[in-house]
Amino acid sequence: MTDKDGVVFIGNKPPMNYVLAVVTQFHSGSTVVHIKARGKAISRAVDVAEIVRNRFIEDVKPVKINISTEVLKGENNEDINVSAIDIELSK
Amino acid sequence: MTDKDGVVFIGNKPPMNYVLAVVTQFHSGSTVVHIKARGKAISRAVDVAEIVRNRFIEDVKPVKINISTEVLKGENNEDINVSAIDIELSK
Repeated sequence: MTDKDGVVFIGNKPPMNYVLAVVTQFHSGSTVVHIKARGKAISRAVDVAEIVRNRFIEDVKPVKINISTEVLKGENNEDINVSAIDIELSK
Repeated sequence: MTDKDGVVFIGNKPPMNYVLAVVTQFHSGSTVVHIKARGKAISRAVDVAEIVRNRFIEDVKPVKINISTEVLKGENNEDINVSAIDIELSK
């Protein structure tokens, strides 16, 4: 990842909010935007990548998709494993 | 995909059901297993891949991850776009 790379973290808002964020980053000069999500938001991350590509910027492609496991701390300080995804969209 | 490749489709059951299916396919001779999911099950597909890799068969890797959009028919015959994922685990 370089300084010019954009990053959009996916949360619980409707997908179009994040689609707009990704499109804005491409329009402001990024050639690569990472769409990142954890847990149940992973499905939404894939939706966002597909909507950007099919409806807004047709020459971007998901050049690399990484999955991983992140360890978070729970309420009682126990470890919680959460899956994560990083979809790298590139122009 | 060749005949020897395994495929596991992810539905709404608990992740460990699918983990068992993937592990079984590797143990019965597959060197590649595709974990496929659509819509909200995509997050579970990532969980399954990560659990297999971290807890059961440490030498498998997600060598290729594809995302796509599938067009289904709704109740009134309208088109519904659904995101899909295909995680290719390889030994």
